[in-house]
Formats: sequence, structure tokens, C-alpha cells
Amino acid sequence: MSTPVLYSYFRSSCSFRVRIALNLKEIPFEYKPINLLKGEQRGEEYLAVNPMGEVPALQIDSNLLTQSVSIMEYLEETRPEIPILPRDPVLRAKASRAVRMLTEIITSGIQPVQNLRVLRKHGLEHKMEWGKWAITHGFDAFELLVSKTAGKYCVGDEITMADICLVPQVFNAERFDVDMKKYPTITRIHQALAEHPAFVKAAPAAQPDCPDELKADATK
Amino acid sequence: MSTPVLYSYFRSSCSFRVRIALNLKEIPFEYKPINLLKGEQRGEEYLAVNPMGEVPALQIDSNLLTQSVSIMEYLEETRPEIPILPRDPVLRAKASRAVRMLTEIITSGIQPVQNLRVLRKHGLEHKMEWGKWAITHGFDAFELLVSKTAGKYCVGDEITMADICLVPQVFNAERFDVDMKKYPTITRIHQALAEHPAFVKAAPAAQPDCPDELKADATK
Repeated sequence: MSTPVLYSYFRSSCSFRVRIALNLKEIPFEYKPINLLKGEQRGEEYLAVNPMGEVPALQIDSNLLTQSVSIMEYLEETRPEIPILPRDPVLRAKASRAVRMLTEIITSGIQPVQNLRVLRKHGLEHKMEWGKWAITHGFDAFELLVSKTAGKYCVGDEITMADICLVPQVFNAERFDVDMKKYPTITRIHQALAEHPAFVKAAPAAQPDCPDELKADATK
Repeated sequence: MSTPVLYSYFRSSCSFRVRIALNLKEIPFEYKPINLLKGEQRGEEYLAVNPMGEVPALQIDSNLLTQSVSIMEYLEETRPEIPILPRDPVLRAKASRAVRMLTEIITSGIQPVQNLRVLRKHGLEHKMEWGKWAITHGFDAFELLVSKTAGKYCVGDEITMADICLVPQVFNAERFDVDMKKYPTITRIHQALAEHPAFVKAAPAAQPDCPDELKADATK
């Protein structure tokens, strides 16, 4: 099998999710940057790879996969050795339910509303206020739910898809100046994860397409 | 076990998804309407049920489930007899990947951008143009992908989560006057599904909270 290829943009939170998942599962991959600010996602070359014109996309097992949660579910089905969904057969349905629910709050409830395409359509001059509104609404609910399911991480003491989605969303929250003091559980989990090697290596500032001047502070 | 309770709004496309899934799996449920236009989703009583302040929510097996895709995955794990994900062990990973990718285009790429909360925030006076933009962008990609995976339905000849999500999204497309002539595969699949009893029974106009004057034309 050839090495998987990830089409990614350093600051894209959906790309960030897939980078974390690949790192956690110890799957080596080649990194191909697609510059969203330069519009490379709408270029003919990339549209032939991914007609959605979005990152991430993952070339793996002779498939081109898009959509970050689907990619994680696929990795989990085909490479289950290091799991990102609960494996305990007794707890699985209950715990997976919590993991998927938390994941979906971010992936359907928050991120799509504050992504670059929507920010541009609504008007970039309002982007801080819009982004803050979208994230705050979702984090209010996420905090309430995660405070009931959390151990060391979002659901118990194992890292799951919910954690993989949370860290990039906190990264975005910082970009949009969201007041994180309202979210003590989210903040605690984020701190526990931020130092983990799979997350550190996946961070925007650690990517080859992060401009040098942003490396010190890639959240801006 | 007591009868599951579904908190729903007749015109909510995420509620529509869960209604279809419950019908397909032949799970009887009690219907509790939450009127989004009257703001009942933000009332104290409902926030205690679902802190996201959104429908749907499903009370089942002593759990309160939210987030429509998570609910479908949970139903699939706990009630697999009538499946909504491919079951063929050989095809499963490949086919599930296609199903989840198509599902996610709708649930993360389209619907969240055109839901009522976002339409209100952006300005209801622009809702037709915004909704049309959001759906057209996503359906362009969906059509391209589904034309490669479709049999009778979105992925092969069995009804899956992708079909469950597609029908409510076409319902919304009609509300926003999207030009469906651009989408022959979507249109063909939608026609094949629209007559299916599980979908007919789940349709907005068939719900107890659909006002009489809208029953003839619940898409407006």
C-alpha cells in the first residue's frame, strides 16, 4: 500500500481533526497543502480531487475520502488497533453515543456555521462577532453535556473522536476571542490534550504551510 | 421498556430524519411537538430536556439522545435488525464510507448553514437567497458523488442513512426554490423514496403539529 496523502490547510479545523486522528493511530502520511486564502480549493486541479472544494481530503487504500467525521469512522473501521471510539463491549453503545453526540455538536452545530465560506458570505467585516456567536452557542451546550461524561477527557479516560474535534474548535474559539472562563470542563480537557504528542504534531503552527510569521501565534 | 418519545417540529429537517429512521426500523414512538416559531425550544421546560435548545431529541432506553446522526448511529447499534448502514461484510467498509460521506455533506455541509437560527442571525429578509446558496453549493458536490455510488438509492439498492438525510434536504431545497433540474440523480432517488411508507409517514405535512392550512403544501 502506498503512503496516504492528506490534502490540508494548516489553519483548517477540519484538517486539524484528521491530522490528530492519523497521528493518534500512528498512520504515516504525506502532507499536501491547499491554500484556502489563495483559492486553491477552487482550482481545477483540486476540484478534480475533491469536488466539494474543501479540505481535508485523504487519499488512502485507493480511495479518496472527504468529510472529516466520515474519515475518522473509516479509519476506525479499517485500523481499529488504536481506537478512537470506546471499545468496552458493555459500555460501547452508551459511551459511543456520548462521543458521537459531543462530536456532532461541534461538527454540525458549531464549525459549519463559522467556517471561512460562511464568514465570507455573511461579510468578513462581521467575522469576529459571528464566529463568537456560533461558538458560544455551541460551547454552552457542550460544556453542560461534557461535565456529565468527562473523566480525564471528554468521555471517560480514553481519547476519542470528541476530543479530536474539541481541540481544533478551542483553537478557533481563541481566534474569535470567545470567553473561555465560562467553560471550565472544556478548558481542563483542552489543557490535558494540548501537550499530547499527536495533538502537538497536528497543530496549525507545526504544519509546513504555516507561514513563519504566524508560527509563534498561529491562532491569529 | 417504555415507548420512546420524540421531541420534534414538523418542518425541522433534522427531526424529519429521525422520524424516517424510526419508521424504517419499525420502532413505535410518542410524538411531542416543540414549536420553533413560538420559541418553545428556548423555554425552560425544553431546555431541561435538551440544553442545545434544538430539536430533535429522543428519549429512549432511559437516555435522552440529541443530534440526529448520533441518534441514527445509536439506533443502528442497538436495533440492527432493519439496517440503515450496509451490512455486507465484504462491502461494509467501502459502502459505509460512501454512506457516511454523503450523509456528512448534508448534515455538516448544508443543513447547519441554512437552519432557522442561522437564517435569523443573518437576516430573515435574505433567507431565500442564503438558503439557495447553501443548498446549491452542497448539492453540486452531492450530485457528482452520488452519481458514482447510486443504485436505486444513494448507495446501491438498500435504503441507508444517506437517503434518510437526502429526502428532508430536498424538502428544504423546494422551500428555497433551488433549481432541481441540475440534479438528475438526486431527483431520481428522491422520487423513488418519496412514496415509501416510512418516508410518507415522516413527512412534515403528516405530523400532528402541521397547521391545517399548510397540510396541502407544507414546503412553504
